[in-house]
Amino acid sequence: MINEKRERKDIPNTGFSSDGKVPAHRFIKPDGSLNVSFVGKKSWQQFSIYHYLLSLSHLQFLLIIFVSYTIVNFIFAIIYVAIGVHHLNGIIAYTKLEEFTEAYFFSSQTLTTLGYGRVSPVGFLANIISAIESFLGVIMFALITGLLYGRFTKPRAFIKFSQIALVAPFEDITGLMLRLAPTKSSTISNLKASVTISLNVTEDGVIKNKFLTLPLQISNVMSLALSWTIVHPIDEESPLHGLTKEDILESDAHIMVFVEGFDEGFSNTVVSRTEYLANEIIFEYKFEPMFRYNEKERRNELDLKMINRIYKVKD
Amino acid sequence: MINEKRERKDIPNTGFSSDGKVPAHRFIKPDGSLNVSFVGKKSWQQFSIYHYLLSLSHLQFLLIIFVSYTIVNFIFAIIYVAIGVHHLNGIIAYTKLEEFTEAYFFSSQTLTTLGYGRVSPVGFLANIISAIESFLGVIMFALITGLLYGRFTKPRAFIKFSQIALVAPFEDITGLMLRLAPTKSSTISNLKASVTISLNVTEDGVIKNKFLTLPLQISNVMSLALSWTIVHPIDEESPLHGLTKEDILESDAHIMVFVEGFDEGFSNTVVSRTEYLANEIIFEYKFEPMFRYNEKERRNELDLKMINRIYKVKD
Amino acid sequence: MINEKRERKDIPNTGFSSDGKVPAHRFIKPDGSLNVSFVGKKSWQQFSIYHYLLSLSHLQFLLIIFVSYTIVNFIFAIIYVAIGVHHLNGIIAYTKLEEFTEAYFFSSQTLTTLGYGRVSPVGFLANIISAIESFLGVIMFALITGLLYGRFTKPRAFIKFSQIALVAPFEDITGLMLRLAPTKSSTISNLKASVTISLNVTEDGVIKNKFLTLPLQISNVMSLALSWTIVHPIDEESPLHGLTKEDILESDAHIMVFVEGFDEGFSNTVVSRTEYLANEIIFEYKFEPMFRYNEKERRNELDLKMINRIYKVKD
Amino acid sequence: MINEKRERKDIPNTGFSSDGKVPAHRFIKPDGSLNVSFVGKKSWQQFSIYHYLLSLSHLQFLLIIFVSYTIVNFIFAIIYVAIGVHHLNGIIAYTKLEEFTEAYFFSSQTLTTLGYGRVSPVGFLANIISAIESFLGVIMFALITGLLYGRFTKPRAFIKFSQIALVAPFEDITGLMLRLAPTKSSTISNLKASVTISLNVTEDGVIKNKFLTLPLQISNVMSLALSWTIVHPIDEESPLHGLTKEDILESDAHIMVFVEGFDEGFSNTVVSRTEYLANEIIFEYKFEPMFRYNEKERRNELDLKMINRIYKVKD
Repeated sequence: MINEKRERKDIPNTGFSSDGKVPAHRFIKPDGSLNVSFVGKKSWQQFSIYHYLLSLSHLQFLLIIFVSYTIVNFIFAIIYVAIGVHHLNGIIAYTKLEEFTEAYFFSSQTLTTLGYGRVSPVGFLANIISAIESFLGVIMFALITGLLYGRFTKPRAFIKFSQIALVAPFEDITGLMLRLAPTKSSTISNLKASVTISLNVTEDGVIKNKFLTLPLQISNVMSLALSWTIVHPIDEESPLHGLTKEDILESDAHIMVFVEGFDEGFSNTVVSRTEYLANEIIFEYKFEPMFRYNEKERRNELDLKMINRIYKVKD
Repeated sequence: MINEKRERKDIPNTGFSSDGKVPAHRFIKPDGSLNVSFVGKKSWQQFSIYHYLLSLSHLQFLLIIFVSYTIVNFIFAIIYVAIGVHHLNGIIAYTKLEEFTEAYFFSSQTLTTLGYGRVSPVGFLANIISAIESFLGVIMFALITGLLYGRFTKPRAFIKFSQIALVAPFEDITGLMLRLAPTKSSTISNLKASVTISLNVTEDGVIKNKFLTLPLQISNVMSLALSWTIVHPIDEESPLHGLTKEDILESDAHIMVFVEGFDEGFSNTVVSRTEYLANEIIFEYKFEPMFRYNEKERRNELDLKMINRIYKVKD
Repeated sequence: MINEKRERKDIPNTGFSSDGKVPAHRFIKPDGSLNVSFVGKKSWQQFSIYHYLLSLSHLQFLLIIFVSYTIVNFIFAIIYVAIGVHHLNGIIAYTKLEEFTEAYFFSSQTLTTLGYGRVSPVGFLANIISAIESFLGVIMFALITGLLYGRFTKPRAFIKFSQIALVAPFEDITGLMLRLAPTKSSTISNLKASVTISLNVTEDGVIKNKFLTLPLQISNVMSLALSWTIVHPIDEESPLHGLTKEDILESDAHIMVFVEGFDEGFSNTVVSRTEYLANEIIFEYKFEPMFRYNEKERRNELDLKMINRIYKVKD
Repeated sequence: MINEKRERKDIPNTGFSSDGKVPAHRFIKPDGSLNVSFVGKKSWQQFSIYHYLLSLSHLQFLLIIFVSYTIVNFIFAIIYVAIGVHHLNGIIAYTKLEEFTEAYFFSSQTLTTLGYGRVSPVGFLANIISAIESFLGVIMFALITGLLYGRFTKPRAFIKFSQIALVAPFEDITGLMLRLAPTKSSTISNLKASVTISLNVTEDGVIKNKFLTLPLQISNVMSLALSWTIVHPIDEESPLHGLTKEDILESDAHIMVFVEGFDEGFSNTVVSRTEYLANEIIFEYKFEPMFRYNEKERRNELDLKMINRIYKVKD
């Protein structure tokens, strides 16, 4: 029933099909990450620390560095109190708590290299500790600078995919269609797409998972100016040829889309991917255009809210 | 009238032609950005904040960070005054305004981690606020460092296109010619160009917008050493074959040029694009050379002021 | 005995075969670096200083900058003592050692731009030295910021290769198989592999070292989602066709693997390579799958500890 | 006399041949930069300021920022003296010069955010100036951080070319040979080379400058492990077929070499180029190997001093 003629060895593989069959509910999670986890590794071990800190939200990140700042100050305050606050010249403290507080703020003034000097270290011990602390401060804030820069410059693909894929008349035949659009105005140029279908096929009475590449009408756009409807023409050579909605559901078809382009804002390659499950493939519907020409402003306008807007094809 | 034989599916699409016809005054604005806007998004929402700050002029950027610095100091000054300036040891103030001024400058000394110490916080409240402020200062200036670095390293294509495209005799036939030149001496290597024409074509009595790729004589230069005249030979297979100046105007032809190369100064890929409207396509003119060999200095010289210099072809 | 039909000129060369024969125990060291050294160059001259500092472990790096900080402070302390500590206002010192200690900590407070101000320079000489030192401090910590950022963002290929390569039945014939898996969850997309064999061949009675490219069943995966078993089908055109375990050992075969992909975490190209010596090529064994579908969590699970797990092929 | 059969349109152009003939002594300067200058632009205008600061030597760069630091302090010192040094609390000055000196060092303590506090601003005017100066200091040192990082990470191709190209027997025919070697141990992978010859050809009695691509035996190496001898086989289709040493000199042949690869140390694309003038093409000589296998250390050794070592081919 499934047409496998088109499968060729010179086409990139999805990376899921090696070593045999992979039954999976989903290969790609809705956020675009792969639905794979490492056995025997905690979630933070799967990342390098640097990438973990880059993956946090801005608020989480700020919280983590603020808490680190607080803890480091706390530790040094304990050390200053331990060696005796009489080593800290200018301290104003009558109780143990006040001593700790003064030591704490002296520490924060040292760590940030603020150094008001109302309180200052006297003698070898306090001086060596504050010399180390100010050095640590410089390192810590060098780290923060790097992390903040890394967070801002981390290229992300500002691309939105339609939540559904459509099968509808296309030219003289039918086609599988899905679309994507830019979500920010930093242009993505030289965007390439590839689409793969995963199907359960019965061979010699055994259900096997197959990956088949779907050739595209156009697989490369010079710049993602407006929305781009990716079309796989369902011709006689297509693995989808003759399949009905029921066949799609029965074979548990997944459609995987992978795009790669050059983001002119980040000046870097960006990639994005998505997956359509069998029940997200809709028959006999087409996408409504999501852009229009504004006569008055003499420019094209793109409406992101329209990305999933479809209409029934009339017979 | 328009020859469409050459259109092939394996050629990158402009990104403008998907989903149907796109009537547009311009596809590409004179600054190279796309003539597209998002409906229901303010201009700053179309950017990420980082890219917005990178897109500002140096003066605008400095102004924004200076104003931010001023505002943050103002806010903290209000807080210090609110908790009472007696928490600030060493303050010299006889009036409310002087109190605020002293608090303001104490704040600026804290935010920049300058910390002269003539004024210094005493007690828990003032100390905790200044500890937070100095931490904020470190974050803020980490941000500035990253933003400044991001601004300097943002790759831009130092390329200038001629303002006009020419149709003139080329070898035995005619050719469409346009040229570009480097504007800085950081070499762009491996520069690739692609040229697309957009035309209004009448099919079955309906005006349709068509995009056709124009094959180039040379589409890739190893390094953009001098000026480069991009030539589309108008042979029998060219969509421009047999078209007159009037046909060009009538069909509202637009010529879109997209170039991509590796800038050796930025060590990064750079892209640039331009568009020629129908009235910017001139017939029977050729470009004057814009470089010459300097016998004395024994080097080639490029004169950017000559980029639009043309001469009438003699019959 | 060795089939050389497949060798073609349009295939990238290993970079080892030029200029004649290269007898070598190993071409690639187990850490992936090339087994080549420069004659007449010390190991640190082979690196640029920047890359040397990037290649150190975190501990080594911290140690180096801490030692530098200590040494610079030491040098400036000597200078301050040399010009006379009476130029340092506020110093508390009764012995020469105490003078040096005070000068040392004054230096560290200057270098980190901490500036408590208990001790401060008075007069031209001490002031000019501390002005230079604080400038140096700023430069030094700008360097540290850059180095730390460089260290974190340096792209590394988080890829692990199997320690052995296998020759076992594959489809109707046999195949050479080796595998690799991601070690971190930052996805590597568009991964390409190429495999080369180096063999000693007797030609006209002379032993010659030959490099032959081994064509792969699949040489490119869209994303390295799970483990990837790279297969060279040993068909009639393969240089390995008909070779036995003994032939492999006798011809001192080395198999070199080179992979290149785009790491989505680093947003950069990463490369990795490995080498299998003749005794690391095992016959009649296959790899056990190293991933499984977790029914409960509905996701694929990858177990890195399984990467070298093999089983004997039954006859 | 010159064989032009091989010239094809799908091969990248050098970037020098457009717009007509370019007589030039040299196209590429010995340092690899192009022998082109801009008319009516000063040398610093040809660069962006950022790239200019990156192109300086470390010493020049340090000097420029130190001088800037000195000048900025000088300007602020003048301003502080102008508004009256009584605004600077704690100043010790009996003469005008001492006043300036104190103001100067106060300025340097402010610009570096050192802030000892022995001298500190009092009153609105001095405070606002020092608030601006410390803000400027932060900006300046953010710039220095970015520039230093930019300098270190700027990818350079650590490649050395032989100073001469050779024509000597190669396999059954002859070949044009030139070689290159890595100068640092950071591996360059996926290195591609292209070689172009520029020749003066007499056509219809007119001397014309022609650029012809020379096909290479191997044009791509997986990693530049050892030296790489690039060979253009002079077969019947080669433009060099049948040319003698005298023909080379007479036609003022230049050979241009362009290489591009991925530097694993910089994790970035690097490019390099060189040019051989007619008198740098030597006949009947071959390169001596510049690497050897070290039996004891069991590794290959590369000797950079051998790169130009050649020997006469025996008849």
